[in-house]
Order: sequence, then C-alpha cells, then structure tokens
Amino acid sequence: MITLSLVGIGSGNPEHLTLEAVRKLQGADVILLPRKGAEKTALADLRRHIATEMLSPAPRVVEFDYPKRDADTPEYTDGVTAWHDAIAAIWAELIARHVRDGGRVALMVWGDPALYDSTLRIADRVIARGLEMRIDVVPGITSLSMLTSAHAIPLNTLAGAVQITTGRNLRAAGWPEGAETLAVMLDGECSFQCLPPEGIHIWWGAYVGMAQQITLSGPLSKMAPEIVDTRARARAENGWIMDIYILRKGAN
Amino acid sequence: MITLSLVGIGSGNPEHLTLEAVRKLQGADVILLPRKGAEKTALADLRRHIATEMLSPAPRVVEFDYPKRDADTPEYTDGVTAWHDAIAAIWAELIARHVRDGGRVALMVWGDPALYDSTLRIADRVIARGLEMRIDVVPGITSLSMLTSAHAIPLNTLAGAVQITTGRNLRAAGWPEGAETLAVMLDGECSFQCLPPEGIHIWWGAYVGMAQQITLSGPLSKMAPEIVDTRARARAENGWIMDIYILRKGAN
Repeated sequence: MITLSLVGIGSGNPEHLTLEAVRKLQGADVILLPRKGAEKTALADLRRHIATEMLSPAPRVVEFDYPKRDADTPEYTDGVTAWHDAIAAIWAELIARHVRDGGRVALMVWGDPALYDSTLRIADRVIARGLEMRIDVVPGITSLSMLTSAHAIPLNTLAGAVQITTGRNLRAAGWPEGAETLAVMLDGECSFQCLPPEGIHIWWGAYVGMAQQITLSGPLSKMAPEIVDTRARARAENGWIMDIYILRKGAN
Repeated sequence: MITLSLVGIGSGNPEHLTLEAVRKLQGADVILLPRKGAEKTALADLRRHIATEMLSPAPRVVEFDYPKRDADTPEYTDGVTAWHDAIAAIWAELIARHVRDGGRVALMVWGDPALYDSTLRIADRVIARGLEMRIDVVPGITSLSMLTSAHAIPLNTLAGAVQITTGRNLRAAGWPEGAETLAVMLDGECSFQCLPPEGIHIWWGAYVGMAQQITLSGPLSKMAPEIVDTRARARAENGWIMDIYILRKGAN
C-alpha cells in the first residue's frame, strides 16, 4: 500500500515543525520537493534545509518542477483546476516511479494542509487518476497563528466570530455583513484599500515566522499607506513577499 | 525582566508539540499547571505528562486550582470577565512568588493561544494589575487543524471564505448570511440541531488528536441524531467531552 503524507511544516520557522512532522518526514521512503519558480526559491530553500539539515539520516529527496499556471484562463477557478490536474499528473508519475511496490511518500506543505492550500485537492486528483493510495494529513502551524503570535493578540474577540477570507473576496464583496473580525490571506493587492477605513484596526505581517518578519498594526486609516509602502519595498528587496492580516471593527 | 510564555501545545496528542514549544517549556524557570475541576482531569494529566515525561530534565512545575466561574451572572460576558479577573489575581501572585527577580514562566495552552482561549486576555489583566512582564506567544496546532486532519479535508473550498464561530452564536443568529463553510467551536449543545439540515454536510470530531478520538461525517439530515447520540454516550463513558465540527452548504 502507498501512503502519501501531506506534512504541515508551519510558515517559515523550522522550529515550528511538530514532533509528528519530524517523525513522518524522517520515516518517509521519499520526500518530494517542489521547485516553484524564481520568486519562491526562498521557500524551496527552507524545505531543503528541513530535509537535509534537520533530519538525520537525511531521507531520500526528489526535486521536481511545478508546471506554470495559465493566468490567461478567463475564469480564475477554471485556470486553477487545469493547473491542479497538471500537478496531479506529475505527482502520480513520481509516486508510481519511486514507491511502486508500496511505501510512504511525504510532501512538505507550508502552514497547515487544510487552510488555503491545494495539496489535498491535488492528492484527490491523483487518486482519481487511478493510483491507489492512502492520504495522511499532518497538521501544521498556520500563518494565521504565526501572525497572532507575532502581535501577541487573540484572533477572536470574547465569544466573537471570525471570518477567514481572501483578498479577492474582499475586493469583490467588501466587508462581509455582520463580521467583526476578518483574517485576510492570499492578498497580493493590499485589498484593505477597498474598504472605508474608519473604525477598523489592522494587524499586518509579512514573512511571518521567518528571519525577515515585518509586523505593523494600528488604525487602518493611518496604517494603510505605510503598509502599502512597506510591502512594496520589502517585495523589491527580497524578490518575493507573503503577507497576511487581521482587520477588526470597533477595536480602535 | 519577567517573561510569560503562553505555549500552544495542540489538542491532546503530545506529538503535536512543536520544536519551539518543547524548547520554551524545557527552558522555563517554572511551569504553572492549572487543575480545572474533575471533568478536566484528563487534560491536566496530559499537561503533566508533557511536563514530566517529555522534558528532560523535567522543569519545576507548580500546580494551582482554577477558581469556579459563577454561571449565575446574568450577562455571559460579565461572568467571564469577573472569572478572568479572579484567575489573573492567582497568576500574578504565583508569578511574583516564583520569579520575583526575573525569569521565565510558562503556561501550556490547549490548541493555539489565539483561538477561543482566554490566556492572552488574562495575561493582559495581570499586566494591568501592575506586574511588569513581557508576553511571548508560542503558536500551537488548533483543534480545527486536528479536525480537518482527522477527516483529511480542506477547511475552505477553492478560494472560498470560512467563518469560525461558537455554538452560542449559531443558536442566536442561525446560519450567517452568505457563509459557505462554518467551523463551530465551544458548542456544548449540538447547536447544529437549530439549523434546517437540508443541503448541509457535517464533519464532526470529539477528543480530536487523543486516543479516544471519534469522527463522524455525512449529510446533516442523516448524521445529526447519530452525532447527538454518540456525543451523549461518549461523554457518559469518559466523564467529559470536547468536540468541534465543520458545516458546509452545497457539499452533499
């Protein structure tokens, strides 16, 4: 039997690996290590550091290239679906080649495999292609937990609800009816700029958990231009950026 | 200087400790270990297991009793606030007694200190009482990540939003306008029963991450009675229960 372990590794600090993640990576027959293009080299380097420096003996690592996503597909979700199919074909070929007679393949997933990550959907597509395998999910520290930790704040108000959403959703629909706290992920466009800022507090972080971590917080009316500017400069300096933020109404 | 480390330890599986959590607990001058009454003995036992079996040498552990929350206070949040004040007074006294001249105190927090947990609010009250200290938050695996891992499902649909809420909110306001995925925590009353079940899928879990973990999933119309029944029996057998669930519309 083939097992595919999707191992959450947290968001950049190798110390955020859990004991289970270390054990599952250590015991894998092969670790598949994706390279995702120039701007994500830093992330691939961190995965490689974990595989080769933190595990002993270092397990077998097979690197592979991700296909490019066709950004021209008219519907966003259609483009993503086709891209996932292309990745699933690569995984299926690699898994069949390396653990043909059974064994355990591990993939390191940023943050937690359940939160805004595609690996579970891609794994389902691998199974749909006819490769029989069991999927094993090892939970990881989310970038959201890293952000709240960096700011030393609770995510929710006392007994309050929290909406986790994307920059795309925020731009399309504005502040969700009745929401008090918003956590915004996957936002490449500082979409908080589409909101009337009055009465909103922001806690922002980039590269959370990494050496180059930057955090800013305060009333959105005051902080929005500073965050936009800081983000642009950090992106230019590092060649890439990953950021995340929490917005709360009535917290000024 | 005094530092208070709030260390997320995940939801019951000691292997879900991160390497950072182990290091921060190991290096603490004293670990404060709360006892919270009979039904939570299992949780205190797990904390004690971590402190005495997983750390070597075992750090100094000081156990203390939690005050009882006055469930008769008319307003829920007023009752909670008074209770947090009473806990803060105990923490302040213990911290002042054990690291008077500076040092690091650690507290183990179930799941992640940012998600439906009171320790950050209580720590702020300790500081408000005049005790000067730095707060250090060590993120942990949330029970939500444990639940999605147990079911091997993503929390969000592709690019979709997720609302995290409580049983109390669900009973008070029903299904939130526009929400697709709901994650419900702190629900002692199977509040999914207040929803018209048609078109809703549920993924439920109790004791997630622990040896006695139970998971059930399926259409809510079919699963609701089975979950209510399973929960009542498990609670009677174990003397306590902690459960959590995800609801999704249009996923049948």
